[in-house]
Amino acid sequence: MSRVAIIGTGFIGRAWSITFARAGHDVVLWDSDPKAPAIARDYIAGLLPDLESNGLLNDGPDKLLGRLSLSSSIDEALDGVVHVQENTPEKLDVKKAVFSMLDEKAPRDAVLASSTSALLPSAFTAHVAGRDRCLVAHPINPPYLIPAAELVPAPWTSAAVMERTAELFRSIGQAPLVMKREIDGFIMNRLQGALLEEAFRLVDEGYASIDDVDIGIRDGLALRWSFMGPFETIDLNAPGGVRDYVERYEGIYSGLWPSTQHRADWSGPVMDRIEAERRARLPADRLVSRQEWRDRRLMALIAHKRDAAKKIGS
Amino acid sequence: MSRVAIIGTGFIGRAWSITFARAGHDVVLWDSDPKAPAIARDYIAGLLPDLESNGLLNDGPDKLLGRLSLSSSIDEALDGVVHVQENTPEKLDVKKAVFSMLDEKAPRDAVLASSTSALLPSAFTAHVAGRDRCLVAHPINPPYLIPAAELVPAPWTSAAVMERTAELFRSIGQAPLVMKREIDGFIMNRLQGALLEEAFRLVDEGYASIDDVDIGIRDGLALRWSFMGPFETIDLNAPGGVRDYVERYEGIYSGLWPSTQHRADWSGPVMDRIEAERRARLPADRLVSRQEWRDRRLMALIAHKRDAAKKIGS
Repeated sequence: MSRVAIIGTGFIGRAWSITFARAGHDVVLWDSDPKAPAIARDYIAGLLPDLESNGLLNDGPDKLLGRLSLSSSIDEALDGVVHVQENTPEKLDVKKAVFSMLDEKAPRDAVLASSTSALLPSAFTAHVAGRDRCLVAHPINPPYLIPAAELVPAPWTSAAVMERTAELFRSIGQAPLVMKREIDGFIMNRLQGALLEEAFRLVDEGYASIDDVDIGIRDGLALRWSFMGPFETIDLNAPGGVRDYVERYEGIYSGLWPSTQHRADWSGPVMDRIEAERRARLPADRLVSRQEWRDRRLMALIAHKRDAAKKIGS
Repeated sequence: MSRVAIIGTGFIGRAWSITFARAGHDVVLWDSDPKAPAIARDYIAGLLPDLESNGLLNDGPDKLLGRLSLSSSIDEALDGVVHVQENTPEKLDVKKAVFSMLDEKAPRDAVLASSTSALLPSAFTAHVAGRDRCLVAHPINPPYLIPAAELVPAPWTSAAVMERTAELFRSIGQAPLVMKREIDGFIMNRLQGALLEEAFRLVDEGYASIDDVDIGIRDGLALRWSFMGPFETIDLNAPGGVRDYVERYEGIYSGLWPSTQHRADWSGPVMDRIEAERRARLPADRLVSRQEWRDRRLMALIAHKRDAAKKIGS
């Protein structure tokens, strides 16, 4: 097993620490605030019993915690690492400075990956001498529950670095999306955004309530999506596969296109209705307990998918 | 329990027959081809053991089959029914003629619902005397596994008919989306279309493979969507709920908008790549066995959701 550095130990850094350490890697936590790594380790220790009781740790909490080390020295933190996962604030100047520092101090063959969701890798690595080893590795939080993670190259990121990172991620149980080139929003936020634009339009224009939209996804479309994805879904939805599907149905979808060529103003008057509908269903003082419900349901779903893949196939 | 007529006994009619009869209703099957209802019943009988072994029947296959009756007389089929579910071919002239006939022959207080996915209810019920009792009730197939079903009113559909149908559907275990007014694609195909447009664009323009898209949904976004839907997901993804989420992130999404203002030609050159990628993963001669895998995984997921809702809450 290898040594991995977590740079920045807020929520994303903590989640990555669990993900790497669970797979057996030695993980060193560093933050610009020297008190932060110890706080992160305590937080992680608090999460592990729940993960263990859902069968989502490979060995016990103590073993996982034993693989974490804390460092207040960046040189020490980067010593001997093969992979650096950066999780500092989403500010361009911060990322630029951090990547200069990482490139200067990390072993020459270590990969430098940023967890950013908001910045293109070209925006903060152009000036870096070893920019060919820099990329974005963007998780959906928390990565120890949600496997998908986007690997996004800058134009100068080497193919070997993309491959090594994809291999590393697969070996720790992640499901990497290996992008061919960068684009704002990467893949997942673009897909989510496309769906949300239509959802807000339908509510804004009075066709549907937000509950109707949630039912249509939760009790409809996302069932098959959650174990196949949308392309396999349509591939299996016509006798002759995906081309047959498109020949049968593209006309319907392209007919919808003109009515989608405008945005709803998400924060306009529709937000009053959306917020009222959500708060009627879930008062604000129950948001936190509902987030806990969400995490328990997510853990149970992950366990179900693992078992179903074993029993029925994946 | 009440009596329900299934008009047209192809795949959708058969699936609705299971759905209504499983809930205890007496279901009469009629088709313009007098031999079709018996074929439908045999087909249904073949599906029931799998449903039973997944715990998805309320009582045994024999009881469910005992609630099905076959009729070659439309007058007999409609006698005493409270709900008519129409599943004839997706041709406007056919639907118009069928709805004239149904309105003439069904009891005055029966609801007349069409399973159409392609036609607006106003297009084939305008001429019907009892048009206020006509609506679309569009399932995702098969409705005995997938709860979501869209109830779509024509401008003249009465509110009482919408409410009665929503109640009936909830009582048989469906999750109705109760639309406020009609629009092409209804809700679910519009949401699916929005996601697919972005997916085809990303592949067409070389940012992603179709596998990347499927991973991003299957191992990413659709996990939470499959038990919450997209609005509850974003409501829980910012400390202050949905308004807070929009205040934080709408800028990112609206920034993506300009790059989404063109369609990929789904059946253009990109289809060659998509088909090649799919067929490399799943040869055409394994499509049928993969569809069986899909149905088994879907049944297992439905059973998991039911159990998780009981244990963890819904």
